[in-house]
Amino acid sequence: MQPPPTRGMHSDVEVAAQAVVLTGKRELRQEEICAADVPPDGGWLTVDACGMCGSDWSRYALRDVPAPMVLGHEIVGTVSMLWGSLASRHDLAVGTRVVLEEAVSCLSCALCRSGRHRLCRSSSRYGATAVERAPGLWGGYADAVFLDARAAVHRVPDGLDPVLAALFIPIANGLSWIGEAACLRPGETVLVLGPGQHGLGSSTAARRLGAGRVMVAGRDGDEARLAAAVALGADTVVNVDRQPLGEMVLDLTDGAGADVIVDTTPLSTSALGTAVALAAVGGRIIVAGAKAGRASPIDTDVLHRRELIVRGVAARESRAIDAALAWLASEPGRFEPFGGLTVGLDGVEGALLALGGEANGDRPLHAVVVPRGTR
Amino acid sequence: MQPPPTRGMHSDVEVAAQAVVLTGKRELRQEEICAADVPPDGGWLTVDACGMCGSDWSRYALRDVPAPMVLGHEIVGTVSMLWGSLASRHDLAVGTRVVLEEAVSCLSCALCRSGRHRLCRSSSRYGATAVERAPGLWGGYADAVFLDARAAVHRVPDGLDPVLAALFIPIANGLSWIGEAACLRPGETVLVLGPGQHGLGSSTAARRLGAGRVMVAGRDGDEARLAAAVALGADTVVNVDRQPLGEMVLDLTDGAGADVIVDTTPLSTSALGTAVALAAVGGRIIVAGAKAGRASPIDTDVLHRRELIVRGVAARESRAIDAALAWLASEPGRFEPFGGLTVGLDGVEGALLALGGEANGDRPLHAVVVPRGTR
Amino acid sequence: MQPPPTRGMHSDVEVAAQAVVLTGKRELRQEEICAADVPPDGGWLTVDACGMCGSDWSRYALRDVPAPMVLGHEIVGTVSMLWGSLASRHDLAVGTRVVLEEAVSCLSCALCRSGRHRLCRSSSRYGATAVERAPGLWGGYADAVFLDARAAVHRVPDGLDPVLAALFIPIANGLSWIGEAACLRPGETVLVLGPGQHGLGSSTAARRLGAGRVMVAGRDGDEARLAAAVALGADTVVNVDRQPLGEMVLDLTDGAGADVIVDTTPLSTSALGTAVALAAVGGRIIVAGAKAGRASPIDTDVLHRRELIVRGVAARESRAIDAALAWLASEPGRFEPFGGLTVGLDGVEGALLALGGEANGDRPLHAVVVPRGTR
Amino acid sequence: MQPPPTRGMHSDVEVAAQAVVLTGKRELRQEEICAADVPPDGGWLTVDACGMCGSDWSRYALRDVPAPMVLGHEIVGTVSMLWGSLASRHDLAVGTRVVLEEAVSCLSCALCRSGRHRLCRSSSRYGATAVERAPGLWGGYADAVFLDARAAVHRVPDGLDPVLAALFIPIANGLSWIGEAACLRPGETVLVLGPGQHGLGSSTAARRLGAGRVMVAGRDGDEARLAAAVALGADTVVNVDRQPLGEMVLDLTDGAGADVIVDTTPLSTSALGTAVALAAVGGRIIVAGAKAGRASPIDTDVLHRRELIVRGVAARESRAIDAALAWLASEPGRFEPFGGLTVGLDGVEGALLALGGEANGDRPLHAVVVPRGTR
Repeated sequence: MQPPPTRGMHSDVEVAAQAVVLTGKRELRQEEICAADVPPDGGWLTVDACGMCGSDWSRYALRDVPAPMVLGHEIVGTVSMLWGSLASRHDLAVGTRVVLEEAVSCLSCALCRSGRHRLCRSSSRYGATAVERAPGLWGGYADAVFLDARAAVHRVPDGLDPVLAALFIPIANGLSWIGEAACLRPGETVLVLGPGQHGLGSSTAARRLGAGRVMVAGRDGDEARLAAAVALGADTVVNVDRQPLGEMVLDLTDGAGADVIVDTTPLSTSALGTAVALAAVGGRIIVAGAKAGRASPIDTDVLHRRELIVRGVAARESRAIDAALAWLASEPGRFEPFGGLTVGLDGVEGALLALGGEANGDRPLHAVVVPRGTR
Repeated sequence: MQPPPTRGMHSDVEVAAQAVVLTGKRELRQEEICAADVPPDGGWLTVDACGMCGSDWSRYALRDVPAPMVLGHEIVGTVSMLWGSLASRHDLAVGTRVVLEEAVSCLSCALCRSGRHRLCRSSSRYGATAVERAPGLWGGYADAVFLDARAAVHRVPDGLDPVLAALFIPIANGLSWIGEAACLRPGETVLVLGPGQHGLGSSTAARRLGAGRVMVAGRDGDEARLAAAVALGADTVVNVDRQPLGEMVLDLTDGAGADVIVDTTPLSTSALGTAVALAAVGGRIIVAGAKAGRASPIDTDVLHRRELIVRGVAARESRAIDAALAWLASEPGRFEPFGGLTVGLDGVEGALLALGGEANGDRPLHAVVVPRGTR
Repeated sequence: MQPPPTRGMHSDVEVAAQAVVLTGKRELRQEEICAADVPPDGGWLTVDACGMCGSDWSRYALRDVPAPMVLGHEIVGTVSMLWGSLASRHDLAVGTRVVLEEAVSCLSCALCRSGRHRLCRSSSRYGATAVERAPGLWGGYADAVFLDARAAVHRVPDGLDPVLAALFIPIANGLSWIGEAACLRPGETVLVLGPGQHGLGSSTAARRLGAGRVMVAGRDGDEARLAAAVALGADTVVNVDRQPLGEMVLDLTDGAGADVIVDTTPLSTSALGTAVALAAVGGRIIVAGAKAGRASPIDTDVLHRRELIVRGVAARESRAIDAALAWLASEPGRFEPFGGLTVGLDGVEGALLALGGEANGDRPLHAVVVPRGTR
Repeated sequence: MQPPPTRGMHSDVEVAAQAVVLTGKRELRQEEICAADVPPDGGWLTVDACGMCGSDWSRYALRDVPAPMVLGHEIVGTVSMLWGSLASRHDLAVGTRVVLEEAVSCLSCALCRSGRHRLCRSSSRYGATAVERAPGLWGGYADAVFLDARAAVHRVPDGLDPVLAALFIPIANGLSWIGEAACLRPGETVLVLGPGQHGLGSSTAARRLGAGRVMVAGRDGDEARLAAAVALGADTVVNVDRQPLGEMVLDLTDGAGADVIVDTTPLSTSALGTAVALAAVGGRIIVAGAKAGRASPIDTDVLHRRELIVRGVAARESRAIDAALAWLASEPGRFEPFGGLTVGLDGVEGALLALGGEANGDRPLHAVVVPRGTR
């Protein structure tokens, strides 16, 4: 693997890169960004691949855009340059392939100091930082991205295809939500609501971590995703538009309900109520799907009668990413059902529309941007 | 201490006892119950004292009564007779003073087998079992109560006044909810919603278990209870009808919010939303107050943005009762602010009305039935 | 499945059964035991299969025998009779096939009340109770065993071969030790010391529960067991008599050491020191192998420098048995490498000698007594 | 509070400071250190107070000294200068009083990234870094200390006396070991072996966190420390040279043993065996005392028969320091029994000898260096 040349240097460490910039709601423009005001410590990554998250579609299609920014936070890249304090980091060298966590630690608050930078709101985030913040290249939908000295980087195992590595976020989240947040115990029943990449990351992780029965629920239009769920190891899939979910879950669990329920459905405010109704005594409900600030009604009497736990999750602890990368490297074939639409920078908008269900044809489960083309 | 004589024996182990029977909504009648069909294993307790729970008022005043029953499940009693397998139990003898857990284990389901009989629904419960279920005496508002062979009994420490011991439920619940369910860490901030006996049990336990700031919120009419909260160790009390709770909590926590929030408010469906709004990152919200099946709206986006945990609690694990009894015995003076209206069987209805806020004068924080009069 | 007839009834519920009785060190005698003084509550199981535990060999060959007893505590049996309170248990009927936990709850101590009857020392244990304790049949090396009313029973899933079900103890222990005691996190490295049935139960469970690399260490003579370890999913096996264990573990973990180490070696007092030397920062060491009371030296400075946890395990929590039975039923083929010498009552002594390595030929990994012959 | 002037500046940010340098075993020399090669990011603290740890005596008296260094890692100081990236840190300004954690995060390894920099071995430590490592001032026995940009700093609450604040390490460790590592449950019994500052930090924390009985064991010569233990809230103290520890603990716990045992004894290799013998079923043993690499024998059969946990602790998680500082500020009087010999730089050697029991008169429990004299 040889590090790509950096192009368009203005000074020793400045670069210019092609990037897809979100300039307004449903407005994307590919342009060259010339990095300026490069900080005294840092590095450059050549972007090998960047996974597309459902939240990217939501930023593109639904939300106001406060300032132009480059989206993309599921970043796989190769170090092309390091300077300042990063030049002496023992875990990094030109040519090292890494993934980045989206949250950049501020290093000084109690959250960051305890390894929970995912919850810190005072620092920059990859895929959600304005171009005007120097040096501008903060997103993975570009052929280079700035490596902040405080970024959390994880080495990609040798031999792991970067397009497959771009699944690290949904897989790491699944491992974290099932294994850590829900604290799955051997043989427990898992129900996943929503068969998107995070839903299937969760169901696959549940299978990996010793669950008993694994069930995945979707709706009309999710047929291919539910088939992928089965291929990824789910025992039972349900189309709730056609089949009575509650009846099925209770039947399959002898009336006990599911021990762990993960809600990954975007915007559904009834999913939490469904989860509470279908949770077994002592059950844990993980809330991961964003609801645009809308409230979900919940019968708290059931919470205490059955001692249920409802837990929100933001991203995942850092070590889950290493576990995900090691798993992807050790069983690459297992993840084929995620499929993966692969596009260049010029295909970003089309892929976002497809993920949002706004394109003709099947809604892909996962899409990856490969800015410099596949090898 | 000498065991009281059992009166009115029909056979070797049958007794007759005075009891206050709930026969319908807001219908209480004191009568003699003659125990019949006594099971082959069991015992009799003379009731020394029985705490009155808010749920007793709710059973009396709000709910339909499926069959006549004797209320009262915060039972302190002295063994007056043992037979069958109980006669050889090494931890029990005539004259032993004990408290009972309300849930009687079924011994055979997975919940009971793992020590979670509090969640089992297939067995009888003290204070909630029909008189028609032999031998009839299943409640503490009576001068004798049946000791089921499968009951969970805890020995009362020598020297502990039975009227004070009757606080074992709110104190044990507080210890369990704060220490186990919320997993309080040293110095964390605790906010308790509702200054009833369970609220103050929780705030007192929080003080005991190393909380930093402890705050208790009440409403108009709770003035005496809030004063008791302070006397029991709370740092800050708030009347939410007069003071802006949210502003105060955020001010006192430098904007961070509370680490642990316990909702003990009966019937309030907005308390959960308040708790979510005021919880710190990583906060835990314990839901204990019953809401009569009505749903509470909850903004789940805040749950995952701050990684909050919402947890329902039913009663407490058994060992918390031993911890509560030991604490009550070691620092009896500390619990004086609980006060305690003490009544005989003829005062049960009046005390229930007072607890429900339906009597003239102050609403007592706690009331205890002493069926045979105080010593 | 039809319940076998009970033979030699003296009264309504008395039976006579063939049993292998341990009468002294290395003295076994097959004889008929006539159950006398049958308790008022209870039942009879026809023994379908009984796994042989390493501790049985140790009781037979190494320890003093305080009184004649029937060994065998990995019991799979079918209910042939129920009386007293057991007759009305909703989870039991004549013809139900179950497994038994070895520890019988006393129902009254704090341990038993919290589901930890495995740690209670005041009650009887299957496979370790004297024949003189009525009704005498307390072990699985017999064609009938007494079902105590306080025994913990678990239903065997329909269709699961009882000989395979007799693996429930090593599999449940493995799930419990890896999943609960060691709290395995996704992708962590596991090292198992000792390739006996508990060692392979642990390595198989580690694979099931999402471990990264799984390593098993044995000695000369363990070749077949190490081959079975690989067939059961271990990534690496080591013969410590031929290969440098420490060097291999450190090489395979980039110098970090193993996250979880399980010591199942009988009598080795150096295993704990090895485990401490090879544990990663934050590692957990599970101590399961019995050492006949001999002390193991441990460098505690390493314990605190790396924040290691050393944890003893006795048996497993009840729910792990249900998880083990469900897993055995769902993937019976996976467990074939356990092999399994199957013998009748007349083969018990030979099988014990073979398990202890005192017979000619290969030392079997697992052996099962089928008192009434295989079907 | 006004920041002290920095003296002897060679350039904008260079200083000279008086420091006590350890140059060889039992060789201390007070000298002026001129900071050179100051890193591009950093700051200076004026040392207000520095607690003396038992490990300082051990470094002075027992160990080889690889290179001259300034001891002292329980540092309370006031920011006198900030430059580079630290100049813009929102939590720091000239005049801010802070304490430092001894471990400086490397920011790049998995341990540091997850908030466990206390376990990282690749970065510098306050009080244990050679003077030759620029800029030389790495210890608290000096009137200035370098503030590394990667140091973990905690703000001292307003009004807290810096000499009292210098107790932050033993108090934070006690809270962490009892509350987090041992996971104390309400009412549990705690036994602390060794009445030094860490022993009494643990016993005081146990009292604070809701322990039942708290016991502290010492030896001849520890009389004043045991009296301090009582004044700090211990229920029972034992001089093991005069009283039978085991008998007393078993008597006081009705034969059950202690739920939590903390070994803080330096160099005793029998303490762990004592702890194992006296631990209750399910007990947790915290190993904190350093043993100079000597092994302790342990009967592992007791570990699994009683399911004991033995856990090593290195320092404490960061948040325990904030809890300790808040507690010290809220109840300053409570900590008076720690007493505290207060010395200037010229008294460091005498205080170390006194702490090590090598001086005439009482061995102090705690000593604090105040380099610039008390106010």
